[in-house]
Amino acid sequence: MSTMTAAIRYNADGLVPAVAQDADTGEVLMLAWMDAEAVRRTLATLRATYWSRSRQEYWVKGETSGHTQEVVSMAVDCDGDTLLLTVRQTGAACHTGNRTCFYTPLTSADLA
Amino acid sequence: MSTMTAAIRYNADGLVPAVAQDADTGEVLMLAWMDAEAVRRTLATLRATYWSRSRQEYWVKGETSGHTQEVVSMAVDCDGDTLLLTVRQTGAACHTGNRTCFYTPLTSADLA
Repeated sequence: MSTMTAAIRYNADGLVPAVAQDADTGEVLMLAWMDAEAVRRTLATLRATYWSRSRQEYWVKGETSGHTQEVVSMAVDCDGDTLLLTVRQTGAACHTGNRTCFYTPLTSADLA
Repeated sequence: MSTMTAAIRYNADGLVPAVAQDADTGEVLMLAWMDAEAVRRTLATLRATYWSRSRQEYWVKGETSGHTQEVVSMAVDCDGDTLLLTVRQTGAACHTGNRTCFYTPLTSADLA
């Protein structure tokens, strides 16, 4: 691994959060997790590949739903513990059918 | 707490990742962590307030640097384990002086 991927700091479970952003609209679509092998597969194939913590398996986004993510760019943050992907999202990013997973607003009224 | 904030699923450390996005440009600026009290303070004050895992203390973004984040909107994702904030960022979001923390690209060349 090169300096750049070596800069990734995985957590105690060997995972790093990866934020997926729509490359065209800028919309933040979802956050999922990658281990080093998922990072390798994603960079090698340019198909976003995550580690499913619930299923404990690699998860090529859209492999069953068809809602694939073609990776346009990928970056690691300043302290190495978060990734950002910009993607071309086919269909919905969210398993609910919503374009993005972030469709539930929180406001100060929620504190009442 | 209402249904919406009650929907947040904190991890074993009582934390949830929060992605901050520039409300005007759509640029993803950073990811930091919040506990329930940081969520409450953020919603109540509309100043992004995180939990610093390294310093083990609340961290009002920009309190020392002046690089504050005024919260425009906040959302929780479909399964409750990630937050998204859109913010008006004063100055640089990154402690390095970069506008965003995600300034280091990763490419397949990094796998060589």
